[in-house]
Amino acid sequence: MQEKHHVVVVGGGFGGLQLVNDLRGAPVRITLVDSRNHHLFQPLLYQVATTLLATSEIAWPIRNLYRDRPEVTTLLGEVVGVDPANKSVVLASGKPVSYDTLVLATGATHAYFGHDEWAPVAPGLKTLEDATTIRRRVLLAFERAELEEDPAKRDALLTFTVIGAGPTGVELAGIIAEMAHRTLPGEFRRIDTRQARVVLVEAGPRILPAFTEELSAYAARELAKLGVEVRTGAAVTDCTDAGVMIGDVFVPSRTLVWAAGVQASPAARWLGIEADRAGRAIVEKDLSAPGRPDVFVIGDTASVMQEEGKPVPGIAPAAKQQGAYVARVIRARLEGKPAPGLFRYRHQGSLATIGKRAAIIDFGRIKLKGALAWWIWGIAHIYFLIGTRSRFAVAWSWLWIYLSGQHSARLITQKETLRNDG
Amino acid sequence: MQEKHHVVVVGGGFGGLQLVNDLRGAPVRITLVDSRNHHLFQPLLYQVATTLLATSEIAWPIRNLYRDRPEVTTLLGEVVGVDPANKSVVLASGKPVSYDTLVLATGATHAYFGHDEWAPVAPGLKTLEDATTIRRRVLLAFERAELEEDPAKRDALLTFTVIGAGPTGVELAGIIAEMAHRTLPGEFRRIDTRQARVVLVEAGPRILPAFTEELSAYAARELAKLGVEVRTGAAVTDCTDAGVMIGDVFVPSRTLVWAAGVQASPAARWLGIEADRAGRAIVEKDLSAPGRPDVFVIGDTASVMQEEGKPVPGIAPAAKQQGAYVARVIRARLEGKPAPGLFRYRHQGSLATIGKRAAIIDFGRIKLKGALAWWIWGIAHIYFLIGTRSRFAVAWSWLWIYLSGQHSARLITQKETLRNDG
Repeated sequence: MQEKHHVVVVGGGFGGLQLVNDLRGAPVRITLVDSRNHHLFQPLLYQVATTLLATSEIAWPIRNLYRDRPEVTTLLGEVVGVDPANKSVVLASGKPVSYDTLVLATGATHAYFGHDEWAPVAPGLKTLEDATTIRRRVLLAFERAELEEDPAKRDALLTFTVIGAGPTGVELAGIIAEMAHRTLPGEFRRIDTRQARVVLVEAGPRILPAFTEELSAYAARELAKLGVEVRTGAAVTDCTDAGVMIGDVFVPSRTLVWAAGVQASPAARWLGIEADRAGRAIVEKDLSAPGRPDVFVIGDTASVMQEEGKPVPGIAPAAKQQGAYVARVIRARLEGKPAPGLFRYRHQGSLATIGKRAAIIDFGRIKLKGALAWWIWGIAHIYFLIGTRSRFAVAWSWLWIYLSGQHSARLITQKETLRNDG
Repeated sequence: MQEKHHVVVVGGGFGGLQLVNDLRGAPVRITLVDSRNHHLFQPLLYQVATTLLATSEIAWPIRNLYRDRPEVTTLLGEVVGVDPANKSVVLASGKPVSYDTLVLATGATHAYFGHDEWAPVAPGLKTLEDATTIRRRVLLAFERAELEEDPAKRDALLTFTVIGAGPTGVELAGIIAEMAHRTLPGEFRRIDTRQARVVLVEAGPRILPAFTEELSAYAARELAKLGVEVRTGAAVTDCTDAGVMIGDVFVPSRTLVWAAGVQASPAARWLGIEADRAGRAIVEKDLSAPGRPDVFVIGDTASVMQEEGKPVPGIAPAAKQQGAYVARVIRARLEGKPAPGLFRYRHQGSLATIGKRAAIIDFGRIKLKGALAWWIWGIAHIYFLIGTRSRFAVAWSWLWIYLSGQHSARLITQKETLRNDG
């Protein structure tokens, strides 16, 4: 008996899971490799960083998702390279995993534009550990301010700077401001948390550049209402543990969060193919690697152009569409049918929230803002969460926050005490 | 105007919180110092270690509990000593906090009976980080076993050893066995998790020595049904990352958990007073330190005898009774009334669970076992959780596990990958 066609999928994010889901019933066996044991619902990661949600509410063990599909093998392992000549993937353990078809869906991480030395003082937000690190630093800053006698040092502890005003930066700044101005007052005795400053720095001319100018201006006004200082057209030139240099002005700020740039995972390097400036592998219009029809690259680590010459955005719906498309290509090939045409991205809309009451949505012809947009945003995110359990847990946490004003996950963990953290 | 009497409470566990709660309305100002920002519901910590509950479901920010009591100041700080002559507490930051009355409720940690070198390979269970460490190791052991080709190494990865058969050890062993035998089968492709061994080692003649022989024997039978190998009268003589030496037999086992001994926090040393073998401060019958009527020691760090000569057990209800008692003493003193008599411990009962369906309860005259005991145990624990939000969240998680068989918090976090952990 001939062994079934072996599809190796690297990465259990939105693209990888959609692909595996859509290959159900196909005449293949699948190996899904990820360096984490869990799928992470990244669109809500900022809510873990800001104490709204618990880690386990937005993460789910990957192998549990495929327990009923014996043809799917889940491997916890770190891929360090691809050997396309021998059609195999190399794991950090040294073990090769051979494939008939390979799909790289390895995502992206944050980039510091050549300033990797900023990483320790201005953590980005891509993993659960990033989120709990930011959560710890934000909570510890208030705790330290309560203990600090020197007014200048106290002000620096009560200044939070978010660098980059895309959806993640806006969402982080909004919730941190709400915490300081609405959740925490009354809990401290020496400081007034309402005195805290939240600075949102954006090098471009306006926040949320993916939205229309009108929605962007609305978001800026809502942020201002929450007490966020928005600084556009302002480039960050240095980050230290004492503060941030914006242009040539130093802002003392002990808590920095990086939400400015992304860098693709090294899929292009592994394959020896061309990458764009952000390191994304430039793929063919059917998402295969140039000259390697049996290798596909999807999601945040692929550089794909839309028909109008704009790049496909690095968001969850795009990754899912690519995963679904590649599943159709693989099925067609195995069935000896013609390929399903080239990949076409359908933009379903852009969403961003500002604090816990307002959001903006751009569905193309329909544009929404305010409380209604916030409710649509919330329902959409609950709908897209994986698993009944997570949906109920997140819905319950949000309802609780809505009713009580109290956040659910205000934990300082990881043994960092007042002494050993700068 | 004279400043109000200043009560400093060190430790936001069960004893410390009960004391602060019961001082509501008293003519005092209170400073509550803890090295953590959260109160931890330790009786359910083993459920975090075994993926049943999320960290934030059993922990709550301390300062949030007292937001409506302006006379209570919460300080995040590590106490490193007491200066009874100057009536002040010394923080790690070097800052002294002076008191009129001091209550030390600093708890206990695990003890390795002079073998601290076992700590890295056999973690104990006292903090949230301990719980996530054990959770990570248990989950990683299955993941590594799935990748392991060598049968002997695979068997060692699939052998879990819990050292110490008090309630925590029994609870850990029961849930790990249930995970291996009931939750995880079907998710792995190369290993059969039902082949996993869970060994529970106890130096004494029987498990759960605080219970009657009959209940203890019942618990041992239930553990055996879950597949736990119970080894009583068996002393652990060495722990390494390869396994555990039981007497002179080596059991290859890559995951060890320490549930054997406790060591009180150094309150006795700070005060320069006598301690018992476990380091607990030997206090007067009104819980004050000998010769220091303005200093009280309560909870797991105090050594108190019952009338029948048995020590008060180191459990949450005992700590709460002591906190409540000291609050009455402080009130009486401030009101110039006679002291409320000596501290008397009222034992309300002992509870332990075996897996997710059985429990034993000893209320003195009434003894229960089986499913009914399990329900009483569950309802009691939900009742004693702090805050409506935690009660709902834990009830929901348990209901979900009950209905679906799936655990909610199967996360491997903290960046430990397959490569860098032994």
